[in-house]
Amino acid sequence: MRAEIISIGTELLVGSILNTNARFLSLELASQAIDVYRRITVGDNVERIVECLKSAAGRSDLLITSGGLGPTEDDVTNRAVSSFLGKPPVFHRPTEAYIRKRLKKRSLKMTRLTASQCYVPQGARVFQNFAGTAPATLSEFEWDGKKRWLLVLPGPPRELEPLFHQAWPVLRRMASARNEHFEVRAVHLAGLLEVQVAQKVGDLLKLKPPVTVGIYARPQEVELKIMVKAASRVKALRLAAKLERTIRARFKEKVYGVNHDSLASVTGQILRNKKRSLASAESCTGGLFSSLVTDIPGSSDYFKGGVITYSNEVKKSLLGVDDNTLKRAGAVSRQTALQMARKVRKILKSSYGVAITGIAGPDGGSLKKPAGLVFIAVSGPERTVVSKNLFLGDRAVIKLSAALKALDVLRLELRQK
Amino acid sequence: MRAEIISIGTELLVGSILNTNARFLSLELASQAIDVYRRITVGDNVERIVECLKSAAGRSDLLITSGGLGPTEDDVTNRAVSSFLGKPPVFHRPTEAYIRKRLKKRSLKMTRLTASQCYVPQGARVFQNFAGTAPATLSEFEWDGKKRWLLVLPGPPRELEPLFHQAWPVLRRMASARNEHFEVRAVHLAGLLEVQVAQKVGDLLKLKPPVTVGIYARPQEVELKIMVKAASRVKALRLAAKLERTIRARFKEKVYGVNHDSLASVTGQILRNKKRSLASAESCTGGLFSSLVTDIPGSSDYFKGGVITYSNEVKKSLLGVDDNTLKRAGAVSRQTALQMARKVRKILKSSYGVAITGIAGPDGGSLKKPAGLVFIAVSGPERTVVSKNLFLGDRAVIKLSAALKALDVLRLELRQK
Repeated sequence: MRAEIISIGTELLVGSILNTNARFLSLELASQAIDVYRRITVGDNVERIVECLKSAAGRSDLLITSGGLGPTEDDVTNRAVSSFLGKPPVFHRPTEAYIRKRLKKRSLKMTRLTASQCYVPQGARVFQNFAGTAPATLSEFEWDGKKRWLLVLPGPPRELEPLFHQAWPVLRRMASARNEHFEVRAVHLAGLLEVQVAQKVGDLLKLKPPVTVGIYARPQEVELKIMVKAASRVKALRLAAKLERTIRARFKEKVYGVNHDSLASVTGQILRNKKRSLASAESCTGGLFSSLVTDIPGSSDYFKGGVITYSNEVKKSLLGVDDNTLKRAGAVSRQTALQMARKVRKILKSSYGVAITGIAGPDGGSLKKPAGLVFIAVSGPERTVVSKNLFLGDRAVIKLSAALKALDVLRLELRQK
Repeated sequence: MRAEIISIGTELLVGSILNTNARFLSLELASQAIDVYRRITVGDNVERIVECLKSAAGRSDLLITSGGLGPTEDDVTNRAVSSFLGKPPVFHRPTEAYIRKRLKKRSLKMTRLTASQCYVPQGARVFQNFAGTAPATLSEFEWDGKKRWLLVLPGPPRELEPLFHQAWPVLRRMASARNEHFEVRAVHLAGLLEVQVAQKVGDLLKLKPPVTVGIYARPQEVELKIMVKAASRVKALRLAAKLERTIRARFKEKVYGVNHDSLASVTGQILRNKKRSLASAESCTGGLFSSLVTDIPGSSDYFKGGVITYSNEVKKSLLGVDDNTLKRAGAVSRQTALQMARKVRKILKSSYGVAITGIAGPDGGSLKKPAGLVFIAVSGPERTVVSKNLFLGDRAVIKLSAALKALDVLRLELRQK
């Protein structure tokens, strides 16, 4: 199957926003072994959108549009889609009911503008939007005697991504021509650079379809993506599992998880299994570490809380960090990190205490203590470990790197026994 | 003048990299009052690239390609360009000399692969690449009896960006476009839904070029984007300023900033100006509010720190929230929020205390207190206000909405006096 992505929005053409949706869709389609033949970005203009849909339908089996489904006058995707399909838009009662319910929760009424989002192309499959109002639609149509599919998605990434995942199995069933099975497995590694990983899996990266391995770098982690195409599901699973074992054997504890695992979810799972609890003391990450921990549903089972000691004054008053240590070694030091971790563990009565202190930049650094210098301490029932790091990047990257690294230090410490 | 951007590279189609070049070019062209009519992404394939160039030349005056100029076999842009222009590639001696000199500095020799980068389309203007080897080229050609321009740029952003700036004045002279100036201004509003904003600016959203206003929704905020095209810079600025005044008059304090302002940066600026300090007490946001505050460089000037009281135990031990209140009203209540804000302000000796307590979901909710219910309290020198909210969405959206809303409650409270 060949796909084409049509991104709709004048704000894209003037560069106001980065087209992350096109990348998300590209990655998802690639992971499903679907070739993306072309990507097009076009403004909010009915005639031009129809022109793009027509030329894409002449080349590709699956057309995916994103954007232009909002309630305002300049959102014209649905008008263009109806015109292209030659089918009038129809008022979709279940969508209306769904939106009404959603609005009611917030004590709002349906307006003429919102009501416009209840129109969908005749005969389309409709997927309700749990993160917004505009639904996604999937239409099957014929073009030059061939079957084609058109998936229409809203523009905001937090709406587009779940709707794509909702629609995908349905689309897959509709289009399932050949007897092919796909298995995609992402193996996540922490604590290594992309080049270090690449050197150890040079042979795997050279594999050709039906079995391939891709490598992707993200802050503080590297992902190896296994993609397998096989004649049966069992065979695909077996091949993917074999490759996963190969990767695990080469990287051991550096592999922290697969697929949707994150450092926070994996570390949380170990805490839960071992019935251990966690408390945090953050300085330069300013709450980001705790926020990542609490992104995981049910984290209240093991996360007791924490303190953000942004000023020295608060390091002393809330945690009781020694004034002498702050004066001699400084707030950004091995000793301060160590004390923060031990004290927060004690004060919050948790099994583990994690402390992060460093310089997020861009200002506040010096030759001896540059921006990016971060000390991470983990204090547990048996010992306290401190790691010294120098992260590169802007303020946001340094904060994120430090928070993720702290999760990894904690994870490795939890594995110890 | 109308432009079209053609991004070349199979790595884009499979989502390995984000197309930041397309955004850079879009922004540059918009700031020069050049309409970007369409953007296309195509793989490294001569035939398909030629097809894209042909269809683009039928629609637009200026075609800009990026990528596919590397030395390896899969870099085919120059072959496609020569085929499209109907002009043979010619060996360009100055480029060869330039590349040789560059390689010599690094003690490298010219190889057959690098030599392939010295071929340029006959008659093209050539721009040397100071950050790499492949030069950029600019060709003038006729299409359907009309003058057209083709600018061919390498893919790596640090090569593409300076080369675009080198080529631009030359292109501008060649095309001697009209004297047009462009002004883009984003006005940010908080505390209103997209539909509520749309209803109040229906007239503005209907404006047609050269002056337009677009509307974009983001979590807890709506952006109105003013785009003005005018014959002079002064005129463009004047028109944009007039529209901004109109919007401000209609929404008053709901307008929190323009362009790169964020709720955290604006609120931080007010705290700094008024020499006030801030402390936080977070429950359901788990540190996200403080992380947003500390995303702003220099936030240590006004942010003292905070506590994350995820468990009731910690609400009592760290903050001294009353046991009776927790038992009777519950952790998620107006009374608990109020106490948290007052106590954290007192304990951390800050001018303002912000407290957030709620249910992030998906579990932990009840009929009376559903997931998404969040109380936000702001305690200042003169009073404490509490706001009750019901946010919709998944756990991540509820956390983000609550943290942003807390920033806005604080912002409005700071404006009071």
